[in-house]
Amino acid sequence: MLSFNSDYMRGAHPLILERLLHTNREQTPGYGTDPYTESAKQRILEACQLPQGNVFFMVGGTQTNTTVIDGLLAKHEGVLAAESSHINVHETGAIEATGHKVLVLPTREGKISATDIELYIKNFYQDDTYEHMVAPGMVYISYPTELGTIYSKTELEAIYKVCRTAEIPLYIDGARLGYGLAAENSDLTLAEIAHLCDVFYIGGTKVGALFGEAVVVSRSSLLPYFRPLMKQHGALLAKGRLLGLQFDVLFTEHLYERISEHAIHMAMRLKQAFLRQGFSLYIDSPSNQQFFLLPNDVIKHLSTQVSFELWGALQETHTPVRFVTDWSTTEEEIEALEKCLEGLNVAEVSTK
Amino acid sequence: MLSFNSDYMRGAHPLILERLLHTNREQTPGYGTDPYTESAKQRILEACQLPQGNVFFMVGGTQTNTTVIDGLLAKHEGVLAAESSHINVHETGAIEATGHKVLVLPTREGKISATDIELYIKNFYQDDTYEHMVAPGMVYISYPTELGTIYSKTELEAIYKVCRTAEIPLYIDGARLGYGLAAENSDLTLAEIAHLCDVFYIGGTKVGALFGEAVVVSRSSLLPYFRPLMKQHGALLAKGRLLGLQFDVLFTEHLYERISEHAIHMAMRLKQAFLRQGFSLYIDSPSNQQFFLLPNDVIKHLSTQVSFELWGALQETHTPVRFVTDWSTTEEEIEALEKCLEGLNVAEVSTK
Amino acid sequence: MLSFNSDYMRGAHPLILERLLHTNREQTPGYGTDPYTESAKQRILEACQLPQGNVFFMVGGTQTNTTVIDGLLAKHEGVLAAESSHINVHETGAIEATGHKVLVLPTREGKISATDIELYIKNFYQDDTYEHMVAPGMVYISYPTELGTIYSKTELEAIYKVCRTAEIPLYIDGARLGYGLAAENSDLTLAEIAHLCDVFYIGGTKVGALFGEAVVVSRSSLLPYFRPLMKQHGALLAKGRLLGLQFDVLFTEHLYERISEHAIHMAMRLKQAFLRQGFSLYIDSPSNQQFFLLPNDVIKHLSTQVSFELWGALQETHTPVRFVTDWSTTEEEIEALEKCLEGLNVAEVSTK
Amino acid sequence: MLSFNSDYMRGAHPLILERLLHTNREQTPGYGTDPYTESAKQRILEACQLPQGNVFFMVGGTQTNTTVIDGLLAKHEGVLAAESSHINVHETGAIEATGHKVLVLPTREGKISATDIELYIKNFYQDDTYEHMVAPGMVYISYPTELGTIYSKTELEAIYKVCRTAEIPLYIDGARLGYGLAAENSDLTLAEIAHLCDVFYIGGTKVGALFGEAVVVSRSSLLPYFRPLMKQHGALLAKGRLLGLQFDVLFTEHLYERISEHAIHMAMRLKQAFLRQGFSLYIDSPSNQQFFLLPNDVIKHLSTQVSFELWGALQETHTPVRFVTDWSTTEEEIEALEKCLEGLNVAEVSTK
Repeated sequence: MLSFNSDYMRGAHPLILERLLHTNREQTPGYGTDPYTESAKQRILEACQLPQGNVFFMVGGTQTNTTVIDGLLAKHEGVLAAESSHINVHETGAIEATGHKVLVLPTREGKISATDIELYIKNFYQDDTYEHMVAPGMVYISYPTELGTIYSKTELEAIYKVCRTAEIPLYIDGARLGYGLAAENSDLTLAEIAHLCDVFYIGGTKVGALFGEAVVVSRSSLLPYFRPLMKQHGALLAKGRLLGLQFDVLFTEHLYERISEHAIHMAMRLKQAFLRQGFSLYIDSPSNQQFFLLPNDVIKHLSTQVSFELWGALQETHTPVRFVTDWSTTEEEIEALEKCLEGLNVAEVSTK
Repeated sequence: MLSFNSDYMRGAHPLILERLLHTNREQTPGYGTDPYTESAKQRILEACQLPQGNVFFMVGGTQTNTTVIDGLLAKHEGVLAAESSHINVHETGAIEATGHKVLVLPTREGKISATDIELYIKNFYQDDTYEHMVAPGMVYISYPTELGTIYSKTELEAIYKVCRTAEIPLYIDGARLGYGLAAENSDLTLAEIAHLCDVFYIGGTKVGALFGEAVVVSRSSLLPYFRPLMKQHGALLAKGRLLGLQFDVLFTEHLYERISEHAIHMAMRLKQAFLRQGFSLYIDSPSNQQFFLLPNDVIKHLSTQVSFELWGALQETHTPVRFVTDWSTTEEEIEALEKCLEGLNVAEVSTK
Repeated sequence: MLSFNSDYMRGAHPLILERLLHTNREQTPGYGTDPYTESAKQRILEACQLPQGNVFFMVGGTQTNTTVIDGLLAKHEGVLAAESSHINVHETGAIEATGHKVLVLPTREGKISATDIELYIKNFYQDDTYEHMVAPGMVYISYPTELGTIYSKTELEAIYKVCRTAEIPLYIDGARLGYGLAAENSDLTLAEIAHLCDVFYIGGTKVGALFGEAVVVSRSSLLPYFRPLMKQHGALLAKGRLLGLQFDVLFTEHLYERISEHAIHMAMRLKQAFLRQGFSLYIDSPSNQQFFLLPNDVIKHLSTQVSFELWGALQETHTPVRFVTDWSTTEEEIEALEKCLEGLNVAEVSTK
Repeated sequence: MLSFNSDYMRGAHPLILERLLHTNREQTPGYGTDPYTESAKQRILEACQLPQGNVFFMVGGTQTNTTVIDGLLAKHEGVLAAESSHINVHETGAIEATGHKVLVLPTREGKISATDIELYIKNFYQDDTYEHMVAPGMVYISYPTELGTIYSKTELEAIYKVCRTAEIPLYIDGARLGYGLAAENSDLTLAEIAHLCDVFYIGGTKVGALFGEAVVVSRSSLLPYFRPLMKQHGALLAKGRLLGLQFDVLFTEHLYERISEHAIHMAMRLKQAFLRQGFSLYIDSPSNQQFFLLPNDVIKHLSTQVSFELWGALQETHTPVRFVTDWSTTEEEIEALEKCLEGLNVAEVSTK
């Protein structure tokens, strides 16, 4: 069955598997001290134009978010984030499990604004009882957001400016970074992202790797004891070269960029296919996650041929759904979906 | 200067000090194993009509909330609470520091509803990804709330019913419990409160004691290893008898009730004094915290003679303020305040 | 019955109670922002000759140790301490509950040595896998130790030198500080202690106060966000003046010193009484805790007239016991004990 | 250069890579809900003869130990373990970071004894102040130990009996489980291990997999909410099938057993090669880690041709070293090492 459920349903890009195979019997030291990790690190810093930066590799997103945020916050501080952010909703309280509160900001289509961050910080320090409240110690945003939307360069500049003024770091969760950068209306490059925040991560798990996320720190002083902290969080992979090697491949000949662009191309075709059939967008997402508001009986019909996710519980007549493309989505799969959509009984749909 | 800032500005009820003095040279074993603690425990269980219950004494509210909530929650669980609740806003993330998320519910005048709790739990378990979310492991309410309001018997019964159905404990923060029970429209007794929740605490710090809160557990199985947990939280007082002795006095001849009623009587006179002068209530509180919405120049005038708290930052023309009475407020103090209010230049006020 | 079980069995010095009574109806702001706290702080800094220092007041020892150690350590660090130290043995893992490991050093009569600290640190950084081990981030010692022994000035200087070289803070647990300073062979003053460590606390609970410990920080930069951290740990007392007031009394006219000296005077008389009867010391303690190795039947006989603690489980023939004096011990109590000891059936004892 | 540094220096067994390749484009649901994971789980439960058991897959050893121990302990409890155990020494305080103390037991060649466990528990509950101490809530052993030694069936039965009597779970860290079971003097089978503890894990990272550890729980009630806890610990891999698939291969046609036996065969040849040259064992290990006490100049000479680890810092004349074989060690590598050893200048060596 056709499946558009998520972007972590397949293995890895063939070039990665090939490299794994060719290097399998090499012996390298552990915990990220191998030459593959070093090479990947150099390639990433170069792509980010961050000669003074540092890169750490971890296995998954929750692990990465938790370790980075724990590394950036003082013990009395919390992290400002969107109400819909992954760290607030979908990590089973991993941030709180390290002792830090997620401080929730009002959210519009997954995004928070510089104005709201500024206001929160201002109100906090104006409050006489601020010692009894959790200090905002950093800002977390995701790019693209959990709803597929992206910040414009202007928006990101404004947020980063507020952070620098308040002297708190800005951290970007880039689980789907490639798909954000490749989004049609994106006006940001990787190097610009790297210079408009303090720490971010380049997601591999959802963008061509078997697994792996590359944390980029714009200056090492920000996370001075990060390797022991990674070990403490169970986030220092023994065979660290597996991570280095994958990112080395992804950052060779712009593979990361190219496969991200492909995914976006597929996503845009998918979006058009729905729009052509007269369906409504639930959110107008420019990246690889597409959200539609479908009549419940369309959902029922489609589900017999295509697998996808309801976005929340089933509603009374229409329900939001999510379709996701990734590096591995083929033209054939999109065409098959197009046929499914065209084949829906128009009369039935139109009555909804 | 007259002061109505809070209910922890004076020492203790004279009977408590007298008892401290009389017993000062007695030698008793430590950590709550003394006869005063035992006596206080028995008096409280009797007042609560909880023969199978247990009582633990701690020093302050944040310590009590943190230790109880940590004791009740499994490691993957969080606590449902009002957005305006003390644990969510004013304990510097003490709950999160023990690894647990505060799960925020919509709040009306400091209260949450049975319906919203039920809906949260239902939605949680209907979500396919609930393992990635923090499970609601208990409910926290405060009585009276941080805004002075109180739950009716019907409201509390409904909340407790939802909790029992969901098999999660209900915990009541009673930092000002006496003032809530003595509130004019209260339809709950101490024993009823005790039977409409699983754990609650009887606040002493704000109700006649130098310090101290008495945690009442309706059945011991709920907090089976609570004493070691208290020690781990730094919440097991060496000279535990100081806590036992204070509550022993408070629960002798209904002292706790009587001084609470006095405070409410003073609060109601205070409220009438403001209303007589034509000022508006910010919240209609039946307990010892009174909230008014005052013109800024009235605030300015009053502040030269009376001390009280702005409720948040100064607004443009009118700002909410809080006046608090307690067990120690005298008729003379209320009369002095009445005179201040009467002396305000009426013409000036009326133009606002 | 005579009791020498511990130094937290009675209330407070009469001068403290008197002051509590006289100030009971005063209204002061909360959380340590009152004039009594300020006055106590100034008196303590003066006594310590630390014009640039800071003082924080907390309620009990475990709370104090946990909050200070959590405040001093980075997240990947642990605290070096004696195996027999209070934080390692008797705080139900309160340090670990904040995420930090207690790194155990070899111990002689409760003390650790500069040499062993130095060796630990040297070995740690020589180990290739040190990122996989908990970094020694500070040193904890108690003065006097849990076994009543005290560090000499030379020993303390050596330990502090190692700490400064390693650039990690030295923290002294002074739960019984007064009794250590008053010990017969002590060659340290309060001001010297204050300059031979980075943070220490002056114990009140066991030395004349109802409760309370005064944390002295030699320079504020060491614990920059300590008040919010105290709140997070449930260690910020609402009626903070209770703590300030007690220490204000204790540091007026050298009361703390005088009552400590009295306790030591009583302890030395107690020690002589045992030695006169031919009993052995278990540890030769110069402070208010005295340890003897008594024949089990002497223990049995004595127990009918005097209360004291076995130091560990009962052994086969002789068992260590602890007798404790404090600020409240009277000459009459010592004389009564002397009579008990003299009255022991000598024949019976001598056969052991 | 020949390398015997560790057992995580190469990739994975070719059959695993082959399977990865063949399944790469399949789409499966995430987080361990795929058919590969289910199949691996069934194969493992069958091999363990645990029809009522459960299996969870995680990425690495520290992550696994931390999550399992956090899952098994109540909040006031700690874990009993050998002083030399991985959780006590080499996980950067990961256990303490979750709030739990590692309670250290005397250790002989990496092992702890039933007698010492029993004594610890007995002493603990006999201590009057046990509420102030960390309760022993479980026992952790490693099989084989960090020093390559293994528990006999009799030893393990005795330990498990003590645990069952004390009603605390026994957990076995099996990072190198295969090599322990294949050890020459091992008298335990996988199924026997599975029935002589409550939870254990089958190490994949060091035994043929790219990465991955399989936690086996003998009855599900022991870790009732383990999946949310895994997520909270960042230990729920998005592409969970990667773990399932690897263990599915390892538990097909006894691959795990066969490659473990091969590694032991290589280790025994390696050991004999050293003994033949007259070198001393540092520890007599029956498993894949071999420890020798070598003269420092032999170390110097050997190091030019072979890579291996010093076991601790260089000593004055002789220093312990570790040589490790694994599933990938070849006969040729052993032969090359044998030649190196034979080529050492005998005269030079003999003078040491």
